[in-house]
Amino acid sequence: MQKPTFFRSTALALAAAFLCPSALLAAPDAAALRDAALKDEIAWDIVEGLTTEIGPRLAATPKEAQARDWAVAKLRSLGFANVRIETYRMPSWERGREEARVVVPFDQPLAVTALGNSGSTGPDGLKAEIAYFRTLADLEAAPQGSLKGKIAFVSHAMKASQDGSGYAPYGQVRRIGPSIAAAKGAAGIVIRSIGTDSHRLPHTGSTRFEPGVAPIPAAALSIPDAENLERMLKRGRPVRLRLLLTPRFPGEQESGNVIAEVPGSDPGAGIILVAGHLDSWDLGTGAIDDAAGIAIVAAAAKRIMDAGRPRRTIRILWAGAEEVGAYGGQAYFAAHGHEKHVLVMESDFGADRVWRAHYRLPAAARPVRDRIASALADLGIVSSALPARGGADIEPLVNAGISVIDLQQDGTRYFDLHHSADDTLDKIDPAQLAQNVAAWTAVLSIAANAKEILH
Amino acid sequence: MQKPTFFRSTALALAAAFLCPSALLAAPDAAALRDAALKDEIAWDIVEGLTTEIGPRLAATPKEAQARDWAVAKLRSLGFANVRIETYRMPSWERGREEARVVVPFDQPLAVTALGNSGSTGPDGLKAEIAYFRTLADLEAAPQGSLKGKIAFVSHAMKASQDGSGYAPYGQVRRIGPSIAAAKGAAGIVIRSIGTDSHRLPHTGSTRFEPGVAPIPAAALSIPDAENLERMLKRGRPVRLRLLLTPRFPGEQESGNVIAEVPGSDPGAGIILVAGHLDSWDLGTGAIDDAAGIAIVAAAAKRIMDAGRPRRTIRILWAGAEEVGAYGGQAYFAAHGHEKHVLVMESDFGADRVWRAHYRLPAAARPVRDRIASALADLGIVSSALPARGGADIEPLVNAGISVIDLQQDGTRYFDLHHSADDTLDKIDPAQLAQNVAAWTAVLSIAANAKEILH
Repeated sequence: MQKPTFFRSTALALAAAFLCPSALLAAPDAAALRDAALKDEIAWDIVEGLTTEIGPRLAATPKEAQARDWAVAKLRSLGFANVRIETYRMPSWERGREEARVVVPFDQPLAVTALGNSGSTGPDGLKAEIAYFRTLADLEAAPQGSLKGKIAFVSHAMKASQDGSGYAPYGQVRRIGPSIAAAKGAAGIVIRSIGTDSHRLPHTGSTRFEPGVAPIPAAALSIPDAENLERMLKRGRPVRLRLLLTPRFPGEQESGNVIAEVPGSDPGAGIILVAGHLDSWDLGTGAIDDAAGIAIVAAAAKRIMDAGRPRRTIRILWAGAEEVGAYGGQAYFAAHGHEKHVLVMESDFGADRVWRAHYRLPAAARPVRDRIASALADLGIVSSALPARGGADIEPLVNAGISVIDLQQDGTRYFDLHHSADDTLDKIDPAQLAQNVAAWTAVLSIAANAKEILH
Repeated sequence: MQKPTFFRSTALALAAAFLCPSALLAAPDAAALRDAALKDEIAWDIVEGLTTEIGPRLAATPKEAQARDWAVAKLRSLGFANVRIETYRMPSWERGREEARVVVPFDQPLAVTALGNSGSTGPDGLKAEIAYFRTLADLEAAPQGSLKGKIAFVSHAMKASQDGSGYAPYGQVRRIGPSIAAAKGAAGIVIRSIGTDSHRLPHTGSTRFEPGVAPIPAAALSIPDAENLERMLKRGRPVRLRLLLTPRFPGEQESGNVIAEVPGSDPGAGIILVAGHLDSWDLGTGAIDDAAGIAIVAAAAKRIMDAGRPRRTIRILWAGAEEVGAYGGQAYFAAHGHEKHVLVMESDFGADRVWRAHYRLPAAARPVRDRIASALADLGIVSSALPARGGADIEPLVNAGISVIDLQQDGTRYFDLHHSADDTLDKIDPAQLAQNVAAWTAVLSIAANAKEILH
C-alpha cells in the first residue's frame, strides 16, 4: 500500500514543482511530505546518537543533564529556532546495589531490580519469609498486620496486547502494591515484573508510598525468576528470601525540559505542541522509551520546517523526568500553560508502527480531522471512535481542554522491553520508525497549515 | 502425522495385549512405546525439579554436589538399578564480581560476564583503551606486542542455524581469542557474546590459555552492548573501558558422575550408554543445557525398563563437569572404557525437536539402522548421510570406535540461550521435549532388543 502511494505522490509533487515551483512552498503537499518521510533517517540518527553517546539518563542525575546538553546541540544542528533548556527542581531517587536470593528451601539467586522510590534494606540486606499473593486483590484482602516481618510476593501476570491495555490494571501491582504491603506491616515486597517477555531482565518503574507510609524495600523479579519462585512456593514449604537493595534519596536536584520551535507565520494561530521525554530509566539506554518518541516528533517537525514556514508554530518539548512523576510536563505547564496552545500531541509508546489514530477536536475542525484521517489511511492507520487522551508530558494541557490527537503505536512488543535493560537500539525497526515519522509528518503538515480552527 | 500413528499403534498394541498378553513383554512394540512417549511427563518432571530445586550447578562447586545428591534420589525413585556417584578431582574456577563501563568518550555501563578460566583484574579493576578487531583473523594478524596495555575487543557476529554449525567457527573467538590476545601483550579482552539473541544477557563459556600464557581478564559483552561499543568505536575517537572481573581459581576440587542402569537380560550383548551432563554454567538454571538432555535419556530409558527387561543393559550417564572441560566424560572412560560398550548416544543440544538422525554403525547392523530410521520417520525425522559424531561426554568412547547414533535437535533457538542467564525452564516447550523422548524411546527400544550386533 505504501509504495505505490509514495511513487504516485512523488511524481505528482515533482510535476507540480516543475510546472509551478512556488506551488509547493505556498501549500506543502501533505501526501508528498508523508511519503518522503517513509525514507526518513533523521529519527534514526537521533535515537542512534542519544543511545550511543548518552545511554541511560535517569531524571535529576548528571546523565540527564548531559542528555539535555546533547539535545540542545542536536536540535540546533537540525536548524530549529529558540532551542533552550528550562530547568526546575524535583525530589530524586538513585539505584544502589540489588541482589535477591532464595535461601530456604532451595538456594538460588534471583534476577531483581529495585522499583523507583523503593526503600533500602541497608547494606546487610533483609532475610524474611515470603507471603505469597496471586493478585493485587489478594494482597489488598490480607488482614492488617498479617505481613509483619515478611516479604510480600505478588505474581499477577500481564499479557501482551496491541493497544497496551494491560498496563493500566496490571501496573497497579507496581504502583500501589508496595504501599499496601507496607501499610500491612511487610518488611519488603517483590513483584513479578510488569512485562510480557521471558528474559532474566527485571522491569523497574515508579512506585508511590501513601503519605504517612514509610517506604519499604520494593523490587521486581524478572518473569522467569518470578515463575521459579512460584514453583518453589507450590512445593508447600516456607520459602525464605534474602533481599539486598540500597537505593538512596539524594533530595531535591535539578532537572529540565528542552524546547525548540518551528516558528509559524501567523502568531495568532496558536501553538501546536509535540512532546516526548528525554529522561529514561537507568537500566537500558532508553531507546523505545523514549528516544524514539522525541526523535519521531523532531523528525516530523523538521520535515514541515524544511518544506516552508507553516502557519502555526510547532513547538517541540523534550520533557525531563517523565518516568519518575512527569515533573517536566508539570514544569512546562506552569511556565507555558497560559500561552495559546491549539493542539497537543505526544509520542511515548515505542517505535513500532502507528496503527490507529484518536482525536479530540472541536466540531469546527471536522474538515481538518477528515483530511488527516485520509492522509493516515494510506499508511494503513484507522480512526478510532474513542477520544484522544494524550500522555503524561502533556497531561496538564489535555486536562485544561486543549485539542489532542493520538497516533497510537503497536504495543504488542512494547512491554517485552519497557523499563528493562533490554530497552536498547537494536529493538527498533528502522522501517517502522520511519512509518511513525510519516504519520506525524502528515498530521503536522495538515494541522499546522489548516485555515480552520483547531481549538 | 504423529496423532494418527499414535492412535493406530496404540490400538494395535492393545489388541495384541488382549489376544496374547505375553506378546508385548516378549518384544516391546517400538512404535507403541514411541507414541506413548509423545505424552511423556517424566522428562518435564526431571527438568522442572532440577531447575527449581537446584538451579545453577557449576562444576566442582557445592551446588554441583547438591545436584548429584538430587540426581541419585531422582534416579532411585524412578526405579533404576545400580544408581551411584563416581567422584573425581579436577581444577576449578569460580566467578567473582563483574562490571564493565565505557569511560571515554561516552560514559555507559555494559552488560558483561567473565569467561570460564578468565584471569582477574584485581579488586580495583582495569582501565585501558580498546583495540578493536572485527574478526578473530584480524586479532591473529595483529603484530606481536601491539596490544600492550590494551583491552582487545573482537566483535565477530554468529548467526543462527538449524544444525548449530556456526558454533564451531565463531566459538573460536571465545575458545582461543583470549590466549592469542594475552600472548600479544593485551591487558584484557572482551568479545561479543557467542550467541544469536538480542538481549542484555552475556553468554559465558570456557576459554583456554596456552601453556606458558598467563590468564588475562577475559569477558563476553551482551550482543546489544557489543553493538553499542562498536557504534562508539565507529565515531573514530579512542574508547577507554573500565573492566572489573574478580574470578578465582580455588584449585583442585571434587566433581562426579551419576550413573544408573536398566540391567539387560543378556550380559554378553553389551552396554548401550546414554549420556548428558548434570553440571551447568552458573548464570542460568541449566534447563536447556543440559537438564533437558539428562531428562530425555532417563525418561526414554525408564520407558524401556517399564516395558520389560531389554536384551542389552542401558546405562545412564549424567556426567559432571562437561562445561568446563568434559572431566566427567574422561573420568567415566578411565573407569569404564574397558567394558563392552556397543552403542553410545548423547543429548546435549537443548529441548527442541529432533529433526535429523546420524548413524555410525557397522554394516552388519544395517537392518537395525533401517528399523530405527523407519520408526523415526513417523516423527518427521530424516536420516543424514553424514556419520554420527557424539558429544563431549562420550567423546573418548566415540574416539575408541564404539558405534554412535546422534538424534540431532533443532538448534535454531539454542544459541539465543546457551550459557546465558536466560537458560531457564520457561524456554522449554513440553511438546518438543516429549518428541525427543519419543525419538529416544524408539531408538532404545529397537537397539536394546536387536538380535543383530550393534558394534
